[in-house]
Amino acid sequence: MNKNAFRNISYGLYVLSSWDNTSPTGCTINSVMQITSEPATIAISVNHNNFTNSCIDKSGKFAISVLSVNSDPSIIGTFGFKSGKDVNKFESVKYDNIQGMPVLKDCCAYIICEVINKMETDTHTVFLGKVVDADILSDGEPMTYAYYHKVIKGKSPQNAPTYIANEGKENMNKGKYVCSVCGYVYDGEIPFENLPDDYKCPVCGAPKSAFVKQQ
Amino acid sequence: MNKNAFRNISYGLYVLSSWDNTSPTGCTINSVMQITSEPATIAISVNHNNFTNSCIDKSGKFAISVLSVNSDPSIIGTFGFKSGKDVNKFESVKYDNIQGMPVLKDCCAYIICEVINKMETDTHTVFLGKVVDADILSDGEPMTYAYYHKVIKGKSPQNAPTYIANEGKENMNKGKYVCSVCGYVYDGEIPFENLPDDYKCPVCGAPKSAFVKQQ
Repeated sequence: MNKNAFRNISYGLYVLSSWDNTSPTGCTINSVMQITSEPATIAISVNHNNFTNSCIDKSGKFAISVLSVNSDPSIIGTFGFKSGKDVNKFESVKYDNIQGMPVLKDCCAYIICEVINKMETDTHTVFLGKVVDADILSDGEPMTYAYYHKVIKGKSPQNAPTYIANEGKENMNKGKYVCSVCGYVYDGEIPFENLPDDYKCPVCGAPKSAFVKQQ
Repeated sequence: MNKNAFRNISYGLYVLSSWDNTSPTGCTINSVMQITSEPATIAISVNHNNFTNSCIDKSGKFAISVLSVNSDPSIIGTFGFKSGKDVNKFESVKYDNIQGMPVLKDCCAYIICEVINKMETDTHTVFLGKVVDADILSDGEPMTYAYYHKVIKGKSPQNAPTYIANEGKENMNKGKYVCSVCGYVYDGEIPFENLPDDYKCPVCGAPKSAFVKQQ
């Protein structure tokens, strides 16, 4: 079996969110698909280790904020490479409370669902949600997972269904500086060493010191 | 609820196939996502009306052929706008028999799964498959659903989760010739009337006479 074949499956990039008692929580996911048209239902896949998973289980509701190519890429890192158990991810982003669910302002569309069914696997829960509200927020082109990998040069976090161990190391980044938090590869014109001290990883916001030169 | 928001969910384009007793059968789908990494599992969504649905139920296996931008677009129409009950769709395409499943030669990757779980909805079945084989067949870029809509100008068949009634009519195609079978909009340089009589719809293969001028 050649697991690289899975990379040919196309996805978008989304912030999945829900409510943790008194505060909003969420995580970056790529696995969202519409299941039925009438009534409209959506399936999502979330790792058991994602704090958002248990919050969706408790609240019975979730929101999907669809990221666009114009969305601030640091959103992906904030929601993808940190845990909602440790930090309030929504503290650093602007959001609206729609139908009781937190929706990012910096996205192109949102979909809010009530959980009507779920299917368990070893590591992930597939939630089936009935859409209760949805709208377009901007005309930005939806960000695809391919765009995230190719243009933003981001990697898959360990909880992603698409995670492949040592993904970064396969990519022949010898001599390049790679973010040790999210795997982002610096590829700018200015030599990495000459970047200002307050340079931050554009994907996850990690400081310059978190970058490691690939041997 | 603004259902156009659903168009911001990103997908690929795939031929889902299985075996109907003695012959291969399949249908075009866009809803495929990886659910877990280890062991690798994949979820797909198929309409109850798709003949392939009952064949997967019986055989307990399915194959996903990932279409690329280099794949012949008529594959989409052959598998998307005709029923396997009526025609042997595999008669007009080249395929290999891999692990007992029909896999298109003209695709960039394939994934073969054994059904391990399923979730029913009003109109679609979500099958969860454990991957038993997968490989890359060519380096063509996977075709996205957005590419299919924007570049090939194809529409969603009625069994698709993403189907929106009168989708073609929303698109201001006044004066243009539209395929009445699949919704493809002719937009070539040669005036439609001057096309040869044996012109066929590049998406579904319908004859020139199946095109209707939009009023």
